Parts: sequence; C-alpha cells; structure tokens
Amino acid sequence: MATPEVNTRILRRLLASGVTTRAERLLAKMPPADVALLFSGLSQEEIRTVIELLFRQRRAARALRELPHEMLPQVFDAVTDQRLASVIARLEIDDLLELVEFIPEDRRPDVIERLPADRRFELMRAELYPESSAGRVMTTNFIALDEKMSAQEAIDSIRAAGNEDESILYLYVVDEQSCLSGVVPIRRLVASPPERKIDELMIPDPVSVMADADQEEVAQTVARYDLLAIPVTDVDSRMLGVITVDDVIDVITEEATEDMYHLAGLSEEDRVFSPAARSVRKRMPWMLLNLSAAFLSAWVIGLFERTLSEAVMLAVFMPIIAQMGGSSGSQALTVITRGIALGEIEFSSGIGAVLKELSVGLTIGTLTGIAAGGIAYAWHGDPVLGIALFSAMVCTLALTGLLGAAVPLVLKALHQDPALGSGVIVIAVNDAFAFFSFLGIATLLLDHVL
Amino acid sequence: MATPEVNTRILRRLLASGVTTRAERLLAKMPPADVALLFSGLSQEEIRTVIELLFRQRRAARALRELPHEMLPQVFDAVTDQRLASVIARLEIDDLLELVEFIPEDRRPDVIERLPADRRFELMRAELYPESSAGRVMTTNFIALDEKMSAQEAIDSIRAAGNEDESILYLYVVDEQSCLSGVVPIRRLVASPPERKIDELMIPDPVSVMADADQEEVAQTVARYDLLAIPVTDVDSRMLGVITVDDVIDVITEEATEDMYHLAGLSEEDRVFSPAARSVRKRMPWMLLNLSAAFLSAWVIGLFERTLSEAVMLAVFMPIIAQMGGSSGSQALTVITRGIALGEIEFSSGIGAVLKELSVGLTIGTLTGIAAGGIAYAWHGDPVLGIALFSAMVCTLALTGLLGAAVPLVLKALHQDPALGSGVIVIAVNDAFAFFSFLGIATLLLDHVL
Repeated sequence: MATPEVNTRILRRLLASGVTTRAERLLAKMPPADVALLFSGLSQEEIRTVIELLFRQRRAARALRELPHEMLPQVFDAVTDQRLASVIARLEIDDLLELVEFIPEDRRPDVIERLPADRRFELMRAELYPESSAGRVMTTNFIALDEKMSAQEAIDSIRAAGNEDESILYLYVVDEQSCLSGVVPIRRLVASPPERKIDELMIPDPVSVMADADQEEVAQTVARYDLLAIPVTDVDSRMLGVITVDDVIDVITEEATEDMYHLAGLSEEDRVFSPAARSVRKRMPWMLLNLSAAFLSAWVIGLFERTLSEAVMLAVFMPIIAQMGGSSGSQALTVITRGIALGEIEFSSGIGAVLKELSVGLTIGTLTGIAAGGIAYAWHGDPVLGIALFSAMVCTLALTGLLGAAVPLVLKALHQDPALGSGVIVIAVNDAFAFFSFLGIATLLLDHVL
Repeated sequence: MATPEVNTRILRRLLASGVTTRAERLLAKMPPADVALLFSGLSQEEIRTVIELLFRQRRAARALRELPHEMLPQVFDAVTDQRLASVIARLEIDDLLELVEFIPEDRRPDVIERLPADRRFELMRAELYPESSAGRVMTTNFIALDEKMSAQEAIDSIRAAGNEDESILYLYVVDEQSCLSGVVPIRRLVASPPERKIDELMIPDPVSVMADADQEEVAQTVARYDLLAIPVTDVDSRMLGVITVDDVIDVITEEATEDMYHLAGLSEEDRVFSPAARSVRKRMPWMLLNLSAAFLSAWVIGLFERTLSEAVMLAVFMPIIAQMGGSSGSQALTVITRGIALGEIEFSSGIGAVLKELSVGLTIGTLTGIAAGGIAYAWHGDPVLGIALFSAMVCTLALTGLLGAAVPLVLKALHQDPALGSGVIVIAVNDAFAFFSFLGIATLLLDHVL
C-alpha cells in the first residue's frame, strides 16, 4: 500500500498538470482516512479541486467523516446545500449528527430540509439524547434475531441485510417487546451446525448500556470487557442501537485530549493547526483568570513589604517555594484526574487517595525542604532563611498534595468535570500560600526570635 | 447483569459466612474483568481466599490478565510456581509476555521453566522484538487461507479451528511463501455464496504493519482506518500475527497516560493506589531537578539584589511574570505534544506550529502585559514598574510559546519522547528568563532613564 505521503505527492503532480480524471481515479482508490490526511499537505487551490472531485464520488461521505473538524468549514463553503445534503445523507446517524453541528448556522436549516424525510426524522430523534451520551454515538444499524431461529436462518438474515456494513460483528437476540435477551458473535454462528437454535447459541444477559449513559462510561465498559460493540437500550432494556469499537476509540481519544486540555486551561477547539486568532481568543479568559491569581500572590507578598526591605535576600529565595509547590500540585492533580478517567477510583473512597497524596507531599516537602534550606543556609549563612525555606516547603507541598487530590475529587462528586478548573485553583492557592508561608515564617522569626 | 458493586457485596457476605462453594460459583459466573475489579473492594484476607478460589478455575488466566498491575505481586505471592505456570500457560502470547515481566526476578526462571516447551519457545521468540513494538503486542493466533479456497472451505476451516477464540474477525489470505495478499472479513464470508472463491471475496493489499513498528504508530493506523484488527508482517510481508482492537485500546489508553504523566514528571508506575513510598521514590528525582531549576531562578534574582533593595516593590510583582509564562508555556506544550500523539503534525513541517505558538504567545503577552502593567501603575503610580511588567510579559510569553512548541518537536526529531522532560525544560527556562527580563528591564530603566 502506498503511504499517504506518496499519494499526496502523486496527487499534487496530477493536479498541477491538470489531469483531473487520473486524480479522481487515485482518490477513488485511496482509503477515505488517507483522503482526509491529504488535505493538510495541499494548497487552498488544490483543496478546492480535490473537494470537487471527491464530491462526485459515493465515498465522499466517508472521507468527510474522517476530516479534521477545522477543515470542515472550507469544505462546506465549496459545495451547494443540495450537494452537501445528498452526501451527508449517506452517513450513519452518529456521524450525521456530528457533522451537522459544523454546518454554519445560517445554512443548517436549508441543508437539513434537503435531507430525505426518514433521515431528517432520525436526526431529530437522535438530537433528543443528551450531549456526549450513548444515544448520540450509537448507530441504529444492527441485525436483530428471534431466539427461535436456527443458525441457518440467522445467516440468511445477514445475507438479506445486504453486504454494505462489514462492521457487523454481533447479532442481537430480542423478544416480542424488542427487549434484548442475548447476543450471538458472528463467528460462533459460522462455526455452529446450521440447524442449531439461536437460544442455544446466544450469550444470555449481555453487557449493555442505557441510551442516556455518558460516553466516557460507555468507553470504560467496552474497554473493561474487551468488547467489539455494545448494545444500547432504553430503561425497559428495549434494544435501540449499537456502539461499535471504532467510535469507542474516538471517545477514548477525545476524552484524553479533553482531560489534558482542561488541566492546561485549553479549549478543545484550540488545535495545532487552528488559526492563531482563535487560540488567542480561547486562551485569553483563562490567562486573565491566571493574571488575577498572580495579582493575588502579589498582594500577599505586598503584606510583607517591610520584611522584604529589611531582608532582601528573602525575595531571592521566595520563588523556589512557589515553583516546587506548583510542580508537586500538578503531579497530584495528574495522578488523580487520570485515575478518575480510567475508573481506578471507582471502588474505594477517595479519602485514601487524598491521604496518600497528602503524605507524599509531606514527605517530598520534608526532603526537598532539607535540601533547599541546607543549601540556602550554606550559601548565605542565614539561619532564618534556611528555617523559613524548610518550613514553607513542608507546608506548601503538603497543601498542594492535599489540594491536587481533593479538588478533582470534589468536582467529580459535584458532577463537574474533574479536570476543568482544578489546575487554576491549585496553582492560585499554591502560589499565594507559598509566598504567605515563606514570608510569614521569616517575619515571625525576624520579629520574635532574633 | 448485576453490577460489579452488587457482586462485590454479595461475595463479601458469602466469604464472611464461609460458604466458599457458593462464592466460587459466583466467581465462575462473573466476567473476568469484574473479578479483577472486585479486588480493590476486598480486605487482604478476602483477597487471599478469592485468589485461591480463582486459581481452581480455567478462567483464572483471563482474570489475571485484567488485574491492575499493582495487584499482581500479591496474587503471585499466594500461589506456587507450578500453579502460576499452569495458569499463565493459557494466555495469548502478548498477555503472557506482559505478565512474565511482573513475576519477581528470583522466581521468574523457575516459573518459565515450568511452562510447556512450545509456550517457552514462543515466549523467547517474542522477547526478541523491541519493547513497545507491534511484535510484542500481536497474537500469533489467526486463521490463514489460500486464495484458491472456496467460501465454504474457508468456513470449514473456521469450524476446524475450534470455537475458542470468538474475537477472530478477519481471515488472512497468504501465498505459498506465507506472504499476506488479502483479507476477508468474516461477515463477507458469511454473506457470500458457498462456492465463491476467496480471491474474488478478499480485500486485496490490506493495511498492515511491520513487527518492529512502534505500538503508538500501530494504534494510530488502526484508529485512522477504523480497523478491528491489523495484520503484522516481517520485511518480506510474511504474515506473523495480528493485533486486535482491544489491545489497540489498551495502547491508546497507555500512551495517553504516558504523555500526561511525562508532562507532569511522573513515572507510569505511580498510580492512585500504588504505595506512597513508591510515589515518593519515583517523584524525588524530578523534584530535585526542579529544585535545581528553582535555585537557578534564585541565582538570577540574586544578580539584581541591589535593584531589589532600592525598589522593593519589584519583588512584589516579579512572580506575576513567572506565573503567567508558566501557564502559557504549558498550554503550548500541551497542544503540541497532543498534536504529535494524534498524528496531527505528521504532514506539515513543525515550523508552522512553532511560528503559530510564538505569535499566540506574543499576542497574549501584549494583551495581558497591558493589563498587568496598567494595573500595577494605577496601584503604585510607578512608571518603571508598569513598563518593566509590560515588556517582561511580552518577552517571556513569546519565549515560552516558542519553547513550548519547539522543545517537544525537537525531542521528536531526535527520536525521543516529546513529552518526557519538555515540561521541566520549559518551566526552568521560563522562570529564570521571567525574573531576568523583569528585573533586568527595571534595572536599566532605574539606572539610565530615571
């Protein structure tokens, strides 16, 4: 198989020489995911030509689905409402739902209007499920069996369903009320004698999720049981759809990105190749929040102006505490938010985790405090400096360990995103406290001891 | 299906009342992944009993595979070498390879010795592949077909292969030299007329990976093409094994954890429930590195002792620059390392990404610099303070934007992990530079202008 890089090079040459028929043939032969990859290597002009060639083909829908989201506006701009509607009408419902969100709001009603009536209805129904829920990610494309069928009859029903969707891996056994009662892996069906009854073949009582379950929970379940697809039901366990593992991979990737982004105070739309202006717009609110936190620290330091003017050496060493506390806090935060995302904290109370991070912070604070205090004392021969550095390090690292663990757990308990905002809280408290403890202890020592 | 929580409660009650036969039956009925989940809810004593019950069953191997790694030493301690060998002998080669690493080194040779000869040989061969390569993650358990077979003959070969592995989804078509020439999805086989020849049914020239490919690259390929399994070949495209999507999910999850952990300076073995002593041991080297960086900052500040003693107000505001630069640097770092992990930077040169982050840093630096300088001037009426704060903010945020983007890209170009160490480099440079620029500019202004 030619690599995407090679294909891009060939395609550029074909486009440059104007041989669009050969370019179209090359596009038709490439996997849709590679067509999507192509785009980032092409010029604006070339992209426009490729979109036109692509939209002549049946596979345009799949290529569209694979495109990075920030390329979509460009693609949508290049085609008419009618053409766009006829292409996206071929998508499965979960992909359709996702793409529709990216159509500019002023065009959206017109494009939806032009969808076939059944697809339009399906879309409306899917939009009733909460965002990021199983109902939004599932496909309604599955094969249901009756448990009284024979293996051969089941195989015939697969043949009858047509050859279009090769991703069907399980067949679902439902009763008269469409309630899910079992699942038959397609391989088991193939290996069984033709006359064997489905109710003897099926795995009864299969793992399933409800339509309003959060997609992250669905992904955890699929990963935990090593499933290839998971059935989605309503409260009465009536079968509604199926979520396949390729969508689960997308969810896992998205959720990991979301966690990393939220910890750093980033918005998901802020990607490597999104325009700089958008990145600035998305990052500014967080940076202004940070600036307020930084001014809070400055205010705390200002409380000790007199001490600082008497012992300017304190100003030299005070950032050490803030820097160490920040690192330690972000370590605790990362361990806990990742543990929450992987479902590792599900079973035990979070108290154990908080106590552990507190004791780790205390221990590391003591060890690095001894090092920092010792070095500072050896360097400047000032015992106040050494003692203040040591004590502030212990207190600050204990606090950031505690906060780094507790903040995301509290956010989770309040049904908020554990990663969102916890970074700014921990860093703001850390910095203000670091300066307060160091300068406070130093002031006490200077005023009362020496 | 009873939830794992309910099962844990029932099991505890059964264990408490000593009815081990019923506990054993419950264990036998639970999915192996749930058995693994149980452990974190049980006491030491109960865990020991469960392990014993579990090791009497054939499914012990699968439950073992699902266990969180930090529970393994406990399990291994509770069983003899012989019993352990007989259980792990039933694992697929990739799982066997992984578990063997966790057997304490002094017992490992004895346990391996007790494996059946063919498994021992297979293990030795697998250990020849580089770490984290496709060869280590693949299973050698696949069905190969000849292209001259009919669909019916292929179905017969599935029946002959036994019913054990329901995860087989594709059949692989190989020639006389075992070179991979095509792939047949099992569903296509089922839907086709029995006499149809395999070479008409197969998808020719399938996507595959080489055995020495990095597992992250494999995961990206599987995700990109929405595959359920990917064939692994040698340089001559001879078929060696298959990587299934459940292993790919594990790889994706692992790699995301690794990136988040490396950005925060954490080791993968440092998990929510790993012992505090291990967390301290793993975090100390990074924290000592941080401490050195912090002392570098202190040394930089020390250069300006005279300025600070003349204008102590500078000490109050100097942490603002470091704090803002740190946040901005970690945003750029996160966007770029995630972009690398998702393969978004594959196609274009990194230069564009670096320039973008530089310009975002410059813009945000200018905007927040105006805010910070303005507030500080309004607060203290000191133009030197305002100008120094503004200029240092612009320079520092531009630098951290540049470094946050460039450091991971350079590490990647040097074939290093882009996330590992980039955090400490960016923060160390940021802090030292933030203080240097702010105090340096202030000194210049005080000495030469005013």
